[in-house]
Amino acid sequence: MHIRAFHDDDWPALWAILAPVFAAGETYAVDRDIDARRARRYWVDQPAACLVAVDDRGQLAGSYFIKANQAGPGDHVANCGYIVAEIARGQGIAGAMCEHSQQQARSLGFTAMQYNCVVATNTSALALWQRLGFAVVGTLPGAFRHPRLGPVDAHVLYKTLAG
Amino acid sequence: MHIRAFHDDDWPALWAILAPVFAAGETYAVDRDIDARRARRYWVDQPAACLVAVDDRGQLAGSYFIKANQAGPGDHVANCGYIVAEIARGQGIAGAMCEHSQQQARSLGFTAMQYNCVVATNTSALALWQRLGFAVVGTLPGAFRHPRLGPVDAHVLYKTLAG
Repeated sequence: MHIRAFHDDDWPALWAILAPVFAAGETYAVDRDIDARRARRYWVDQPAACLVAVDDRGQLAGSYFIKANQAGPGDHVANCGYIVAEIARGQGIAGAMCEHSQQQARSLGFTAMQYNCVVATNTSALALWQRLGFAVVGTLPGAFRHPRLGPVDAHVLYKTLAG
Repeated sequence: MHIRAFHDDDWPALWAILAPVFAAGETYAVDRDIDARRARRYWVDQPAACLVAVDDRGQLAGSYFIKANQAGPGDHVANCGYIVAEIARGQGIAGAMCEHSQQQARSLGFTAMQYNCVVATNTSALALWQRLGFAVVGTLPGAFRHPRLGPVDAHVLYKTLAG
């Protein structure tokens, strides 16, 4: 598995990974009926960088984006989103992308990273981010409407990136 | 003082209030050199609603916007920004707008309100929001670059809106 910059011809495979996750509505604060055009703007075009994880056979296994979490006096804090193809889960790809994204963020000049809305029921992601050095700095009561469980908490995670 | 919807011809007076605050860079995570066109998009056009506070002589004394803080399964949580004209400070206008915004948010269907980046050095705002029912649910270490003080903490505030 290696991680490289997104290329235009990755989009069909990336959209095939994103679409079911957004439609399921269990982990991302994104419109569940988002279309390919808006999803591409959100994941690829608006961020500062979009990268993809590719397996040994050249198949897209995951992706992440980096952008500034705030503008102006807050633009030294990065925000990322990560996604792993359903068939590629449990192989450490999310963790590899998270570590890669921290290096990328530093090389882009960011000095901290923040996740704004880690859904409390997404316990495996939450445990992984904490293992990789993120602190849960806040909990937003009922801030995410889970499609089966109703309103659930979301967490704000933060990590200062060492120079 | 009364609070009403923003009209197009309020813009010159509103921009005269926003511009020095954004340029000062002490309270808003907005580009300090933002121009009028982008500021209008940020404060007026993109939000779900923009309101203005007008004093007894018809002068613009302040303004606030409401928008969804997240999309999709997070779009029941509102986010607001408030601003008071420098000459109108200390008259309770920020508090009046905050209470008004909570009613407006409820009428727009929001069930909670979140502020993402309340700068720790903005102690009067921080005390006011807490007095009006907001809890500090998290602290982001060094997440705001204050022009004189360097990196300072920012707080995440949250309030569930009673039905």
